[in-house]
Amino acid sequence: MRKLFQMKIHNFSAGPCILPKSVFKKAAESLVNYNNTGLSIAEMSHRSKDFISVMEKATSLVKELMNVPEGYDVLFLQGGASMQFYMSGLNLLPENGAAAYINTGTWSSKAIKEAKLLGNIYEVASSKEENFNYIPKNYDIPNNASFLHYTSNNTIFGTQFKDLPDTDLRLVCDMSSDIMTREIDVKKYDLIYAGAQKNLGPAGVTLVIVNKNALGKTGRSIPSMLDYQIHIAKESMFNTPPCFSIYTTMLTMEWLKELGGIQEIKKRNLAKSNLLYQEIDRNSLFEGTAKTEDRSVMNPTFVLRNKTLNEEFLNKSIEAGINGLKGHRSVGGFRASMYNAMEIESVQALVQVMQEFENARG
Amino acid sequence: MRKLFQMKIHNFSAGPCILPKSVFKKAAESLVNYNNTGLSIAEMSHRSKDFISVMEKATSLVKELMNVPEGYDVLFLQGGASMQFYMSGLNLLPENGAAAYINTGTWSSKAIKEAKLLGNIYEVASSKEENFNYIPKNYDIPNNASFLHYTSNNTIFGTQFKDLPDTDLRLVCDMSSDIMTREIDVKKYDLIYAGAQKNLGPAGVTLVIVNKNALGKTGRSIPSMLDYQIHIAKESMFNTPPCFSIYTTMLTMEWLKELGGIQEIKKRNLAKSNLLYQEIDRNSLFEGTAKTEDRSVMNPTFVLRNKTLNEEFLNKSIEAGINGLKGHRSVGGFRASMYNAMEIESVQALVQVMQEFENARG
Repeated sequence: MRKLFQMKIHNFSAGPCILPKSVFKKAAESLVNYNNTGLSIAEMSHRSKDFISVMEKATSLVKELMNVPEGYDVLFLQGGASMQFYMSGLNLLPENGAAAYINTGTWSSKAIKEAKLLGNIYEVASSKEENFNYIPKNYDIPNNASFLHYTSNNTIFGTQFKDLPDTDLRLVCDMSSDIMTREIDVKKYDLIYAGAQKNLGPAGVTLVIVNKNALGKTGRSIPSMLDYQIHIAKESMFNTPPCFSIYTTMLTMEWLKELGGIQEIKKRNLAKSNLLYQEIDRNSLFEGTAKTEDRSVMNPTFVLRNKTLNEEFLNKSIEAGINGLKGHRSVGGFRASMYNAMEIESVQALVQVMQEFENARG
Repeated sequence: MRKLFQMKIHNFSAGPCILPKSVFKKAAESLVNYNNTGLSIAEMSHRSKDFISVMEKATSLVKELMNVPEGYDVLFLQGGASMQFYMSGLNLLPENGAAAYINTGTWSSKAIKEAKLLGNIYEVASSKEENFNYIPKNYDIPNNASFLHYTSNNTIFGTQFKDLPDTDLRLVCDMSSDIMTREIDVKKYDLIYAGAQKNLGPAGVTLVIVNKNALGKTGRSIPSMLDYQIHIAKESMFNTPPCFSIYTTMLTMEWLKELGGIQEIKKRNLAKSNLLYQEIDRNSLFEGTAKTEDRSVMNPTFVLRNKTLNEEFLNKSIEAGINGLKGHRSVGGFRASMYNAMEIESVQALVQVMQEFENARG
């Protein structure tokens, strides 16, 4: 014990990112001795009764928390959303078929790139000309598109879909950065995927929620590891799953359920983002970068009107225990990622630094 | 603290499996507070200085421990060996090309199945007709094969290649279950891959060692996440890597280096397997299932001559704190997986149970 007192760190990192302290504590205990078995959760067979019950619990928590309807399967896979950019098309896009994509930034662009290896991809809307600072709302979709793909929240540009895209088409969505942060009507989607490392768990596991009836219709030969039907048949254990990441994700979902579920966390998330956006709008030194109506609840992005103060402000934030506030190079300035596990006290700490900075430099 | 005394558990699980206790302890500490940063190793950005240095350390430890020559790259990917079954062919097999595979059981068979999606695959040798209880040694390889693929150790049937396959062809090898357990001449290989969850770390990360010069020659369009060249260019950070699994793998390699490296662990592994095989051969109740010359140092497989005693013996082993001894259903009987982190005391404990059982039932 070198320090008797350690400053509280407010973790605004975009991902991998904050998870509840209680989850890390429990996961650390289980890493040494799981449930008094004398074994680490990371050294037991994935075919053991103990681990199978972790997998079942994780699956049923997703279904319960997100109100997943009959006919959908929940999978825990590897490779992150980046693997899903390709895998989604491989499983859903018929040979010589077409699909529609909305481009709201880096992640959508990458999804489009991978899907283009598989068929005719229409980029039906894009906010690229405005450095992706808004969510496109009016677009035409060609008749032959099989589905519409979008990214529900853009972590880099700080934008978020507030409503479902306006279409009758089946939806495919990358929800990596806002899954389980607000209620979603799963039955509108043929596929939802999300890297865990924002709101669910540690990096290394990807949640997939897929409509069984949408599968098996492409006419392609699909490699086993990229075939949702195989993973469904094997209940996410076609091969050794990322056991520890799944276990920790399960713990995070238990925490979320205990706290009141998605309805409750949504309220808390709105309280946090309202607090910060109010300060961004009030404080004479700062301004937000995304269009007001499309602002992300998860990743507010903002800049100093006077860029020469950037480094000084960043240093002040670090002195106050604020971690990860530097904005992505595509936007500059600052980004405050405020995922489910962040408490409002951390946002208050940031607001205080902004106010003190205004008093000193305004 | 419900128990003051907990029986020592001897973890013979085939994988996920035993890692050093000191590694689990350090990993658990870092999961709560990494290096006194106030942050968990699992909640920090993979682009942070702290995590980049973990990745660099992990990469350089692989190079150092395995004596990886110039011209090779070390990658930490996701998806396990099962993903590599497909990815290896995608990156190394020219369009309309051919490759040779040796079939030594379940994992080779799966590798062959995935590779067949990509080209002409010759199964040049197989021990299937003897339930894979030996390593095939004589085979002809067609002239047009680009590489020879084999599985160095079969965890299910308890066999292991003692020498390199007899060929001038470039080698591709699934070393999931014996990587870093003995010295390997890396320059004979264009590709080595290994799921971490036997000798390296927790499930969820896959080690890849690839000859740069073998890449980019297939004429295919390769999806980004399946393209070794992209992962090389991005130093295993094309997307968010499985940070915690990589960190724990790094800790395990530090432990291995500290202990004397691969030369030393090889001696220890041989001492453990000699001890057990001697008992299997001596004890009148038991017999080994693999051909003597091809017996695995990692996964000895053995049966009771009188199968009706199976359950009783398994119960005796469990009473002695032995975990995971039940054999795979394809072989039956027992399998004692003895990876790097297993201490000889655990093998002694198993031998003692076998001897007591002989005294009681022999």
